[in-house]
Amino acid sequence: MSARAGIVVTGTEVLTGRVQDRNGPWIADRLLELGVELAHITICGDRPGDIAAALRFLAGEGTDLIVTSGGLGPTADDMTVEVVAHFCGRELVLDDVLEEKIAAILKRLRARFTDVDFDAVRAANRKQAMVPAGAQILDPVGTAPGVMVAGKPTVLVLPGPPRELQPMWHTAVQMPGLQEAIAGRTEYRQDMVRMFGLPESGLAETLREAQGQIDGFDRLEITTCLRRGELEIVTRYEPDAAPVYAELLRVLREHHARQIFSEDGSLVDDQVAALLTGRRIATAESCTAGLVAARLTDIPGSSGYVAGGVVAYANEAKSGMLDVDAELIETHGAVSEPVAEAMARGALRRFDADTAVATTGIAGPGGGTKDKPVGTVCFSVLLADGPTLTRTLLLPGNRSDVRERSTTVAMHLLRRALLGAKDPAALRD
Amino acid sequence: MSARAGIVVTGTEVLTGRVQDRNGPWIADRLLELGVELAHITICGDRPGDIAAALRFLAGEGTDLIVTSGGLGPTADDMTVEVVAHFCGRELVLDDVLEEKIAAILKRLRARFTDVDFDAVRAANRKQAMVPAGAQILDPVGTAPGVMVAGKPTVLVLPGPPRELQPMWHTAVQMPGLQEAIAGRTEYRQDMVRMFGLPESGLAETLREAQGQIDGFDRLEITTCLRRGELEIVTRYEPDAAPVYAELLRVLREHHARQIFSEDGSLVDDQVAALLTGRRIATAESCTAGLVAARLTDIPGSSGYVAGGVVAYANEAKSGMLDVDAELIETHGAVSEPVAEAMARGALRRFDADTAVATTGIAGPGGGTKDKPVGTVCFSVLLADGPTLTRTLLLPGNRSDVRERSTTVAMHLLRRALLGAKDPAALRD
Repeated sequence: MSARAGIVVTGTEVLTGRVQDRNGPWIADRLLELGVELAHITICGDRPGDIAAALRFLAGEGTDLIVTSGGLGPTADDMTVEVVAHFCGRELVLDDVLEEKIAAILKRLRARFTDVDFDAVRAANRKQAMVPAGAQILDPVGTAPGVMVAGKPTVLVLPGPPRELQPMWHTAVQMPGLQEAIAGRTEYRQDMVRMFGLPESGLAETLREAQGQIDGFDRLEITTCLRRGELEIVTRYEPDAAPVYAELLRVLREHHARQIFSEDGSLVDDQVAALLTGRRIATAESCTAGLVAARLTDIPGSSGYVAGGVVAYANEAKSGMLDVDAELIETHGAVSEPVAEAMARGALRRFDADTAVATTGIAGPGGGTKDKPVGTVCFSVLLADGPTLTRTLLLPGNRSDVRERSTTVAMHLLRRALLGAKDPAALRD
Repeated sequence: MSARAGIVVTGTEVLTGRVQDRNGPWIADRLLELGVELAHITICGDRPGDIAAALRFLAGEGTDLIVTSGGLGPTADDMTVEVVAHFCGRELVLDDVLEEKIAAILKRLRARFTDVDFDAVRAANRKQAMVPAGAQILDPVGTAPGVMVAGKPTVLVLPGPPRELQPMWHTAVQMPGLQEAIAGRTEYRQDMVRMFGLPESGLAETLREAQGQIDGFDRLEITTCLRRGELEIVTRYEPDAAPVYAELLRVLREHHARQIFSEDGSLVDDQVAALLTGRRIATAESCTAGLVAARLTDIPGSSGYVAGGVVAYANEAKSGMLDVDAELIETHGAVSEPVAEAMARGALRRFDADTAVATTGIAGPGGGTKDKPVGTVCFSVLLADGPTLTRTLLLPGNRSDVRERSTTVAMHLLRRALLGAKDPAALRD
């Protein structure tokens, strides 16, 4: 047994990409938590024919539950309830109690909109009190009520604004009708491994090997994803397949011990933040030009350990603000390991810090040479009480990719150096 | 006549909300520009059955073109090409030329991953050279080729990473097969007005007024969107409704002359870049901590006018690196207009620049007081040869919102000051 669901997101502004849909992913997450299998999210505009088609499609795919978002407002293009009523073969009826509730809400709001004709507003909102006969009503969070029509599939109709949809979902999920619809749900666990420095194809090879080695491998639902230069491996499994997952983890560790940096969902940002506690860091950035400092300070409380940084874009700034010898730049070029190290040293001294990270590279599109093509980036991490790590990498992609990827590399080098200060074994290449 | 399209986004990581889908909205925008009506975006996981169901659904809805994204990688869960071949009734065949191309790409990448077995990588990637018989092939941007299978509907298969998908789309759209599929499209014009400093409700009021004043207003399809603190008004219309759009523009200018900063699609970033040509800018950032420098240098060629900047997170950094008098900080607080001005002055002098921008504020979640709540940010723009603009704003949202919004405000203040240096009338408040 299992329970399968689909999501219908409505709204022309979402379909055309003017507004980013936040409801689909949010409901998807809630369904996953419940152990309901999500088949499809569909997004369509405010055309009744397209909404009806999406409902028929999802019902045809054997869903037990369809959740819709949007189209519950008072204006003429808000058609979701009407379309759902027709789809479920129910009449639309005026719910008197609901109408009074909406009127009361509008009365409270009235004070704020003194220049609006209240009777017109109320008439427009009467439409929102029309519900499919026999539907269960979810009280408005804003002015729009939600409705649930039990059946095969059960349809749950929620409003578009996330601040209304989210509390209403939590109410709906408690209702017996919804619990019945998803009675077949399976309990799942979900675990994540994060790696850095491994190409996706290398992981694919390991997973193929694991498939041959591990009994019950097919009980693991594995998704891999390359994000910001990191590989994420997410595995879902039923609780009694935990030993199979443990085996997978063993194989991954065996092949990629150096590349795995997280097995508990933590981000490199969190890890670096924890490692920096009690320290004082300064940045010296050329090609990333502030992105490393911005990423470090994205975390609340980072003012406890971030002293500051220099964006040394021009060579004079490298010399004047970070004491990089102009001759060093002359000899090795601004994009070179000696200059990266000198930048880190300068930042350490100037900010009276104990930890420094420096980047200098060619983000493109111009500036590349045969020896140092676009994407060449030098990194240096310097610890007053520990190792200096200096690296040169050739990073793929366009200007913005190179800058973003460089920022991620800088975070990982920082992590490595900070771990190395505690345990030199962490530095083995 | 018209042309109708659907989009199938694949990928369990997108379906489950772990990765935000950027392809659906992007393709939607391109289709709109072409005058192709978009019916549905569907999102499903990496299950072949679900991908096939989505294709059947969209074909059943009378689409002329289906665009898929994702599932072209070398791993076993990348099934899109195989599913599309079956859906189109074509066999999967190995394309020798394509295989060689992919091998050549892998050889170039090889140098970067010395610890990986190259033959294994190559075998894993051979799968990517299997294409539906008779399909048109789109050369890889990364390692994955795209394919187009002409028919009713025509199916265009694109890779998941946006930086691969986007250039490939531009290639595909030139191909005769795709042009044929969307031959029924309606020609539209699309124009955009960007404003800064106007609440969305103020614009709604103006649009209501315009509706009453302008003949043929209903021929304009207007979408408004609040993005990064700026209001975008996008209008689509058939070419012969151009005079109606001209009227709308007249009304917008009449009401919001000061807030409109772009009528030609240009971003404030582009405008600031143009205004900075021949100048030399330095940044001094506290709460934005590098985001302003990063945004200025996001533009290719910015090394021509960006000298550098200081991230002065700690107070000692404000004094030590930007010569802000410690007493000034003591008297007014680090988040104050005098300190913002002193930071800008320090950056101007230290970097030998003629233009400086400074930010200091409380991004939260901690650090707010009754007088200076979270979201309080002071800005100062200083021109050696022109005005100094200093402002304090209270910005809404969480830590990341406040930092991002502050960066946008800094860009707009820069624009204003630089325009003011040319024409003092631009500075009128």
